[in-house]
Amino acid sequence: DSSLKVFTLNSNPKLAEEIAANIGVELGKSSVTKFSDGEIQINIEESIRGCDVYVVQSTCEPVNQHIMELLIMIDALKRASAKSINIVMPYYGYARQDRKARAREPITAKLVADLLQTAGASRAITLDLHAPQIQGFFNIPVDQLVGVPILSSYWSEKGLDDIVVVSPDHGGVTRARNLADRLKAPIAIIDKRRPRPNVAEVMNIVGNIEGKTAILIDDIIDTAGTITLGANALIDSGAKAVYACCTHPVLSGPAIERIQNSKIEELVVTNSIPLKEEKLIDKITQLSVAPLISEAIIRVHERQSVSILFD
Amino acid sequence: DSSLKVFTLNSNPKLAEEIAANIGVELGKSSVTKFSDGEIQINIEESIRGCDVYVVQSTCEPVNQHIMELLIMIDALKRASAKSINIVMPYYGYARQDRKARAREPITAKLVADLLQTAGASRAITLDLHAPQIQGFFNIPVDQLVGVPILSSYWSEKGLDDIVVVSPDHGGVTRARNLADRLKAPIAIIDKRRPRPNVAEVMNIVGNIEGKTAILIDDIIDTAGTITLGANALIDSGAKAVYACCTHPVLSGPAIERIQNSKIEELVVTNSIPLKEEKLIDKITQLSVAPLISEAIIRVHERQSVSILFD
Ligand SMILES: Nc1ncnc2c1ncn2[C@@H]1O[C@H](COP(=O)(O)O)[C@@H](O)[C@H]1O
Ligand SMILES: Nc1ncnc2c1ncn2[C@@H]1O[C@H](COP(=O)(O)O)[C@@H](O)[C@H]1O
Repeated sequence: DSSLKVFTLNSNPKLAEEIAANIGVELGKSSVTKFSDGEIQINIEESIRGCDVYVVQSTCEPVNQHIMELLIMIDALKRASAKSINIVMPYYGYARQDRKARAREPITAKLVADLLQTAGASRAITLDLHAPQIQGFFNIPVDQLVGVPILSSYWSEKGLDDIVVVSPDHGGVTRARNLADRLKAPIAIIDKRRPRPNVAEVMNIVGNIEGKTAILIDDIIDTAGTITLGANALIDSGAKAVYACCTHPVLSGPAIERIQNSKIEELVVTNSIPLKEEKLIDKITQLSVAPLISEAIIRVHERQSVSILFD
Repeated sequence: DSSLKVFTLNSNPKLAEEIAANIGVELGKSSVTKFSDGEIQINIEESIRGCDVYVVQSTCEPVNQHIMELLIMIDALKRASAKSINIVMPYYGYARQDRKARAREPITAKLVADLLQTAGASRAITLDLHAPQIQGFFNIPVDQLVGVPILSSYWSEKGLDDIVVVSPDHGGVTRARNLADRLKAPIAIIDKRRPRPNVAEVMNIVGNIEGKTAILIDDIIDTAGTITLGANALIDSGAKAVYACCTHPVLSGPAIERIQNSKIEELVVTNSIPLKEEKLIDKITQLSVAPLISEAIIRVHERQSVSILFD
């Protein structure tokens, strides 16, 4: 059998360390630095000839740099005769640019898929893609892991009473349903409508939340506008308390301030995107996806089905 | 005939303005900004259906961002039914990563060529590629314009006496020969040798420079180590004065300080890479490649040979 190697790039080295430790290998030796003019310089410092290589890289901010690091690493691995190049992208940047919402827009999520394949990726392991259609943007196998079980275990252990799982918009109902099933709880939906153009949105809550403990769930929390407005609307409509969770804590711009000042008691996220010190406020709990991803890597490497990890 | 449109991205908008003005068109309307999380957002704000589009972008620092802007723009233009997508890259980033100098290195210059084609580029107009082999990395037409005529005109007009054109290393002799022919001057070569590993290089000058005015020429000046050490060696070996020129002023890290403190009287560069205020010191003269590039675009658009611009 060919040997398994795990390499990290610069986006998420701690997660990569954890994954390698779980699998029981050392992280592959490489350096990913910059030349004086900002061009990426990659040195792979051990032979990977004939190996199955797994490269861990979330394409979170700085997204363009992280994408280029990944592409250049794939190129280097390909030219160094790797047997397979498996990219492990816990967070897939540009996933929200997945369709032409307006005339003359790019579909950057598809472009990124094409770029990864052009560079030479053989397989992708992903987590909660913003749209499941992104799998179809690839012509290589894509495993899509799911974060809900990790979030749901946390909530179960926490032992909150009289829960309702709430989707912050229509797009997220399936995800909310999935979490609710696991917690044996009902769901509710925040139904935003703009009565007329340029008039503030009205938030209407579909489902019974009166006196209940609401758990909001989304895939990505970016500027945290949707989730914090939703949380406040839930309290105003009679919820007893509001918690929130998501897989991908982008948390850009005003996000931390908004969460801090919102009625959210606790926000639970995963480490698909690492959080800098200043973002790790008391209200935020970060759970590791390393066990899930390590299990997926082992299964892929041993030619076993990964779908068992989806339930 | 289909109409010609010129768009700019964020690397070199002034050059793009100049090019559009020379051609006699307005710059295409578009906005290239960032979402809160740093992802690039491109809006093309006019129809380009059936048009021959020219996109001006040097992939200079921040190189990864500029490459991604270009790729996303190409994707958007392709999906908006452009007839042809012609990329105008006065400076081609990652050109020095054009071969495997060591084991397990990437060949990023080839990767970039593949990425541009995958995105949908139909043609590339370039200027002084670091290695002419980069043309062969593409399977689309690549025009390679040459900066030497622009530099040589400047030196001719300046009217320096008793010139010798000097190549700072062996790789640049052809370029030096080209400039020397135009200036009807002899050439010299700085011949660097490292006597033993970890011993300082010795600079030996091949050719007669005694009492002459030396003009150093290179394609790229990055940290300016080579060129400033070369200039000082020329003076120490009896040159009367030293001038220098290059096409691409990368000028990263200590470059400006080194040039300021060197024996170089004047450094002449082009605007293939724009220079921020603080880099435009008195010693540096910047010449525009806009006339050359506009002429090339017009010729390409009118299906005329571009090779006349190479001499
Ligand atoms: N990085 C980003 N930040 C904010 N909005 C984005 C980003 N990328 C794409 N979008 C927009 O988000 C919308 C898609 O989000 P969604 O409706 O949640 O799938 C599209 O209209 C995109 O223009
Ligand atoms: N951005 C860069 N800055 C400095 N050196 C580089 C850069 N890109 C590539 N190189 C190195 O420069 C060498 C090629 O330069 P050259 O010999 O001038 O073609 C190779 O050894 C590369 O590793």
